[in-house]
Amino acid sequence: MKNKSVKKKTTLRPTARVGLNGTVARKKKTPELKHLAWDEVEREILTPLFERQLIVGQEIMLARIVLRKGCIVPMHSHINEQVSTILEGTLKFFIDGKEVLVGAGEILTIPPNMPHKAEAMTDVLAIDIFTPPRADWINKTDSYLRKK
Amino acid sequence: MKNKSVKKKTTLRPTARVGLNGTVARKKKTPELKHLAWDEVEREILTPLFERQLIVGQEIMLARIVLRKGCIVPMHSHINEQVSTILEGTLKFFIDGKEVLVGAGEILTIPPNMPHKAEAMTDVLAIDIFTPPRADWINKTDSYLRKK
Repeated sequence: MKNKSVKKKTTLRPTARVGLNGTVARKKKTPELKHLAWDEVEREILTPLFERQLIVGQEIMLARIVLRKGCIVPMHSHINEQVSTILEGTLKFFIDGKEVLVGAGEILTIPPNMPHKAEAMTDVLAIDIFTPPRADWINKTDSYLRKK
Repeated sequence: MKNKSVKKKTTLRPTARVGLNGTVARKKKTPELKHLAWDEVEREILTPLFERQLIVGQEIMLARIVLRKGCIVPMHSHINEQVSTILEGTLKFFIDGKEVLVGAGEILTIPPNMPHKAEAMTDVLAIDIFTPPRADWINKTDSYLRKK
Protein backbone atom coordinates (compact mmCIF):
# COMPACT_ATOMS: atom_id res chain seq x y z
CA MET A 1 0.00 0.00 0.00
CA LYS A 2 2.95 2.26 0.70
CA ASN A 3 4.64 3.88 -2.26
CA LYS A 4 7.92 5.67 -2.22
CA SER A 5 7.68 8.16 -4.95
CA VAL A 6 9.63 11.31 -4.56
CA LYS A 7 12.04 10.74 -7.40
CA LYS A 8 9.74 8.76 -9.67
CA LYS A 9 8.60 10.30 -12.93
CA THR A 10 4.99 11.23 -13.35
CA THR A 11 3.17 10.97 -16.66
CA LEU A 12 2.90 14.73 -16.90
CA ARG A 13 4.17 16.31 -20.06
CA PRO A 14 7.23 18.42 -19.31
CA THR A 15 5.32 21.47 -20.46
CA ALA A 16 2.35 20.89 -18.16
CA ARG A 17 1.99 23.81 -15.78
CA VAL A 18 0.39 22.59 -12.60
CA GLY A 19 2.31 24.44 -9.87
CA LEU A 20 0.11 26.94 -8.05
CA ASN A 21 1.39 30.28 -6.83
CA GLY A 22 0.24 32.16 -3.77
CA THR A 23 -0.56 29.08 -1.69
CA VAL A 24 1.40 30.32 1.35
CA ALA A 25 0.60 33.51 3.25
CA ARG A 26 3.48 35.94 3.72
CA LYS A 27 2.52 36.59 7.31
CA LYS A 28 1.81 33.87 9.88
CA LYS A 29 -1.48 33.99 11.75
CA THR A 30 -1.37 34.58 15.49
CA PRO A 31 -1.95 31.31 17.32
CA GLU A 32 -5.36 31.31 18.96
CA LEU A 33 -7.42 28.96 21.13
CA LYS A 34 -10.64 28.32 19.21
CA HIS A 35 -13.58 26.03 19.93
CA LEU A 36 -15.53 25.40 16.73
CA ALA A 37 -18.12 23.04 15.32
CA TRP A 38 -18.22 21.95 11.68
CA ASP A 39 -21.97 22.70 11.70
CA GLU A 40 -21.23 26.36 12.39
CA VAL A 41 -18.39 26.84 9.92
CA GLU A 42 -19.28 28.64 6.67
CA ARG A 43 -19.94 26.30 3.75
CA GLU A 44 -18.42 27.55 0.53
CA ILE A 45 -19.93 26.20 -2.69
CA LEU A 46 -17.26 26.50 -5.39
CA THR A 47 -19.11 24.51 -8.05
CA PRO A 48 -22.27 22.39 -8.00
CA LEU A 49 -19.95 19.42 -7.33
CA PHE A 50 -17.51 20.92 -4.82
CA GLU A 51 -18.24 22.36 -1.37
CA ARG A 52 -15.84 23.05 1.47
CA GLN A 53 -15.38 24.42 4.98
CA LEU A 54 -12.11 25.66 6.46
CA ILE A 55 -10.65 25.71 9.95
CA VAL A 56 -7.39 27.60 10.04
CA GLY A 57 -4.83 27.47 12.83
CA GLN A 58 -1.38 29.01 12.70
CA GLU A 59 0.41 26.31 10.70
CA ILE A 60 -2.39 23.74 10.35
CA MET A 61 -5.45 24.08 8.12
CA LEU A 62 -8.33 21.59 8.02
CA ALA A 63 -10.67 21.56 5.03
CA ARG A 64 -13.87 19.52 5.19
CA ILE A 65 -14.79 18.80 1.60
CA VAL A 66 -17.87 17.40 -0.08
CA LEU A 67 -17.32 16.25 -3.66
CA ARG A 68 -20.28 14.98 -5.65
CA LYS A 69 -19.82 11.94 -7.89
CA GLY A 70 -17.96 12.91 -11.06
CA CYS A 71 -16.27 15.97 -9.54
CA ILE A 72 -12.77 16.41 -10.93
CA VAL A 73 -10.06 18.39 -9.18
CA PRO A 74 -7.64 19.16 -12.02
CA MET A 75 -3.94 18.33 -11.88
CA HIS A 76 -2.13 20.82 -9.66
CA SER A 77 0.65 21.06 -7.12
CA HIS A 78 1.54 23.28 -4.18
CA ILE A 79 4.38 23.73 -1.76
CA ASN A 80 2.01 22.91 1.13
CA GLU A 81 2.22 19.37 2.52
CA GLN A 82 -1.20 17.65 2.29
CA VAL A 83 -2.81 14.73 4.10
CA SER A 84 -6.16 13.67 2.64
CA THR A 85 -8.43 11.58 4.85
CA ILE A 86 -11.55 10.06 3.33
CA LEU A 87 -14.55 9.70 5.65
CA GLU A 88 -17.17 8.56 3.10
CA GLY A 89 -17.04 7.43 -0.52
CA THR A 90 -14.11 6.81 -2.85
CA LEU A 91 -11.77 9.34 -4.40
CA LYS A 92 -9.44 8.37 -7.24
CA PHE A 93 -6.11 10.18 -7.21
CA PHE A 94 -3.83 10.50 -10.22
CA ILE A 95 -0.44 10.97 -8.63
CA ASP A 96 3.14 9.89 -9.11
CA GLY A 97 2.29 8.21 -12.42
CA LYS A 98 -0.36 6.01 -10.81
CA GLU A 99 -4.08 5.87 -10.10
CA VAL A 100 -4.80 5.39 -6.40
CA LEU A 101 -8.30 4.65 -5.13
CA VAL A 102 -8.70 6.04 -1.62
CA GLY A 103 -11.80 4.85 0.24
CA ALA A 104 -13.47 5.55 3.56
CA GLY A 105 -11.08 5.13 6.49
CA GLU A 106 -8.07 5.60 4.23
CA ILE A 107 -5.47 8.33 4.04
CA LEU A 108 -3.11 9.69 1.40
CA THR A 109 -0.06 11.68 2.46
CA ILE A 110 0.99 13.99 -0.40
CA PRO A 111 4.48 15.52 -0.24
CA PRO A 112 5.00 19.20 -1.04
CA ASN A 113 5.07 20.00 -4.77
CA MET A 114 3.85 16.59 -5.93
CA PRO A 115 1.33 17.09 -8.77
CA HIS A 116 -2.03 15.38 -8.21
CA LYS A 117 -5.51 15.23 -9.70
CA ALA A 118 -8.60 13.69 -8.13
CA GLU A 119 -11.90 12.30 -9.35
CA ALA A 120 -14.87 11.47 -7.13
CA MET A 121 -16.02 7.94 -7.97
CA THR A 122 -18.98 8.40 -5.62
CA ASP A 123 -20.16 11.25 -3.43
CA VAL A 124 -17.17 11.86 -1.13
CA LEU A 125 -16.72 13.41 2.30
CA ALA A 126 -13.07 14.15 3.07
CA ILE A 127 -10.95 16.13 5.45
CA ASP A 128 -7.79 17.51 3.90
CA ILE A 129 -5.07 18.79 6.17
CA PHE A 130 -2.44 21.23 4.97
CA THR A 131 0.66 22.83 6.39
CA PRO A 132 1.19 25.67 6.01
CA PRO A 133 -2.46 26.71 5.48
CA ARG A 134 -3.52 27.10 1.82
CA ALA A 135 -3.53 30.87 1.36
CA ASP A 136 -5.23 30.50 -2.05
CA TRP A 137 -8.14 28.66 -0.40
CA ILE A 138 -8.41 31.24 2.37
CA ASN A 139 -8.19 34.16 -0.08
CA LYS A 140 -10.43 32.46 -2.69
CA THR A 141 -7.81 32.85 -5.41
CA ASP A 142 -8.14 29.16 -6.28
CA SER A 143 -9.51 29.61 -9.79
CA TYR A 144 -8.30 26.12 -10.83
CA LEU A 145 -11.14 24.71 -8.70
CA ARG A 146 -13.85 27.02 -9.94
CA LYS A 147 -13.72 26.29 -13.67
CA LYS A 148 -16.67 23.91 -13.83
CA MET B 1 -17.49 29.94 21.14
CA LYS B 2 -14.25 31.58 20.07
CA ASN B 3 -11.81 32.51 22.78
CA LYS B 4 -8.73 34.63 22.39
CA SER B 5 -6.42 33.37 24.99
CA VAL B 6 -2.75 33.73 24.34
CA LYS B 7 -2.03 36.32 26.97
CA LYS B 8 -4.67 35.28 29.46
CA LYS B 9 -3.58 33.75 32.76
CA THR B 10 -4.32 30.12 33.42
CA THR B 11 -5.11 28.78 36.87
CA LEU B 12 -1.81 26.89 36.94
CA ARG B 13 0.37 27.50 39.95
CA PRO B 14 3.56 29.27 38.88
CA THR B 15 5.56 26.26 40.03
CA ALA B 16 3.56 23.76 37.99
CA ARG B 17 5.83 22.02 35.50
CA VAL B 18 3.83 20.99 32.51
CA GLY B 19 6.10 21.79 29.57
CA LEU B 20 7.28 18.67 27.79
CA ASN B 21 10.74 18.32 26.32
CA GLY B 22 11.70 16.31 23.27
CA THR B 23 8.44 16.83 21.40
CA VAL B 24 10.15 17.91 18.17
CA ALA B 25 12.55 15.72 16.17
CA ARG B 26 15.92 17.25 15.37
CA LYS B 27 15.80 15.93 11.83
CA LYS B 28 12.87 16.33 9.46
CA LYS B 29 11.42 13.23 7.84
CA THR B 30 11.72 12.89 4.08
CA PRO B 31 8.38 13.66 2.47
CA GLU B 32 6.82 10.52 1.08
CA LEU B 33 3.64 9.58 -0.79
CA LYS B 34 1.84 7.04 1.39
CA HIS B 35 -1.53 5.35 1.01
CA LEU B 36 -2.68 4.03 4.38
CA ALA B 37 -5.81 2.75 6.11
CA TRP B 38 -6.54 3.32 9.80
CA ASP B 39 -7.48 -0.38 10.03
CA GLU B 40 -3.92 -1.31 9.11
CA VAL B 41 -2.07 1.16 11.31
CA GLU B 42 -0.58 -0.27 14.54
CA ARG B 43 -2.76 0.30 17.62
CA GLU B 44 -0.74 1.27 20.64
CA ILE B 45 -2.35 0.65 24.03
CA LEU B 46 -0.74 3.05 26.49
CA THR B 47 -3.10 2.38 29.38
CA PRO B 48 -6.37 0.44 29.67
CA LEU B 49 -8.10 3.78 28.99
CA PHE B 50 -5.92 5.21 26.21
CA GLU B 51 -5.20 3.76 22.77
CA ARG B 52 -3.76 5.48 19.73
CA GLN B 53 -2.61 5.15 16.13
CA LEU B 54 -0.21 7.48 14.33
CA ILE B 55 0.21 8.62 10.74
CA VAL B 56 3.30 10.72 10.30
CA GLY B 57 4.06 12.95 7.34
CA GLN B 58 6.91 15.40 7.15
CA GLU B 59 5.40 18.28 9.12
CA ILE B 60 1.92 16.88 9.80
CA MET B 61 1.09 14.09 12.25
CA LEU B 62 -2.37 12.56 12.69
CA ALA B 63 -3.16 10.62 15.85
CA ARG B 64 -6.39 8.60 16.04
CA ILE B 65 -7.16 8.28 19.72
CA VAL B 66 -9.60 6.18 21.69
CA LEU B 67 -10.13 7.34 25.28
CA ARG B 68 -12.39 5.33 27.55
CA LYS B 69 -14.77 7.16 29.88
CA GLY B 70 -12.84 8.56 32.86
CA CYS B 71 -9.49 8.69 31.07
CA ILE B 72 -7.49 11.74 32.16
CA VAL B 73 -4.68 13.23 30.12
CA PRO B 74 -2.73 15.22 32.72
CA MET B 75 -1.93 18.91 32.34
CA HIS B 76 0.93 19.35 29.87
CA SER B 77 2.13 21.64 27.11
CA HIS B 78 4.29 21.34 24.01
CA ILE B 79 5.72 23.58 21.35
CA ASN B 80 3.75 21.67 18.69
CA GLU B 81 0.55 23.29 17.47
CA GLN B 82 -2.44 20.96 18.03
CA VAL B 83 -5.90 20.68 16.50
CA SER B 84 -8.18 18.20 18.27
CA THR B 85 -11.20 16.95 16.33
CA ILE B 86 -13.79 14.87 18.18
CA LEU B 87 -15.56 12.21 16.12
CA GLU B 88 -17.51 10.46 18.90
CA GLY B 89 -18.21 11.22 22.56
CA THR B 90 -17.33 14.25 24.69
CA LEU B 91 -13.94 15.36 25.92
CA LYS B 92 -13.60 18.01 28.62
CA PHE B 93 -10.55 20.23 28.25
CA PHE B 94 -9.05 22.29 31.06
CA ILE B 95 -7.31 25.07 29.18
CA ASP B 96 -6.71 28.79 29.45
CA GLY B 97 -8.32 28.88 32.89
CA LYS B 98 -11.56 27.37 31.59
CA GLU B 99 -13.34 24.04 31.17
CA VAL B 100 -14.37 23.44 27.57
CA LEU B 101 -16.62 20.53 26.60
CA VAL B 102 -15.82 19.40 23.07
CA GLY B 103 -18.34 17.03 21.53
CA ALA B 104 -18.69 15.06 18.30
CA GLY B 105 -18.28 17.25 15.23
CA GLU B 106 -16.38 19.87 17.22
CA ILE B 107 -12.80 21.07 17.09
CA LEU B 108 -10.37 22.73 19.47
CA THR B 109 -7.34 24.56 18.08
CA ILE B 110 -4.61 24.66 20.73
CA PRO B 111 -1.74 27.13 20.22
CA PRO B 112 1.86 26.06 20.80
CA ASN B 113 2.90 25.96 24.48
CA MET B 114 -0.62 26.37 25.89
CA PRO B 115 -1.03 24.03 28.89
CA HIS B 116 -4.03 21.72 28.68
CA LYS B 117 -5.55 18.72 30.44
CA ALA B 118 -8.37 16.52 29.18
CA GLU B 119 -10.94 14.19 30.73
CA ALA B 120 -13.13 11.77 28.77
CA MET B 121 -16.75 12.31 29.89
CA THR B 122 -17.76 9.32 27.74
CA ASP B 123 -15.85 6.94 25.50
CA VAL B 124 -14.22 9.23 22.95
CA LEU B 125 -12.89 8.82 19.43
CA ALA B 126 -10.73 11.74 18.35
CA ILE B 127 -8.22 12.69 15.72
CA ASP B 128 -5.50 15.01 16.96
CA ILE B 129 -3.36 16.81 14.41
CA PHE B 130 0.04 18.18 15.28
CA THR B 131 2.70 20.22 13.56
CA PRO B 132 5.51 19.48 13.77
CA PRO B 133 4.94 15.77 14.53
CA ARG B 134 5.12 14.85 18.23
CA ALA B 135 8.55 13.24 18.51
CA ASP B 136 7.76 12.02 22.05
CA TRP B 137 4.73 10.10 20.74
CA ILE B 138 6.73 8.63 17.86
CA ASN B 139 9.63 7.69 20.15
CA LYS B 140 7.35 6.52 22.99
CA THR B 141 9.02 8.85 25.48
CA ASP B 142 5.62 10.18 26.54
CA SER B 143 5.71 8.94 30.14
CA TYR B 144 3.16 11.57 31.24
CA LEU B 145 0.52 9.52 29.40
CA ARG B 146 1.54 6.13 30.75
CA LYS B 147 1.23 6.76 34.49
CA LYS B 148 -2.18 5.13 35.01
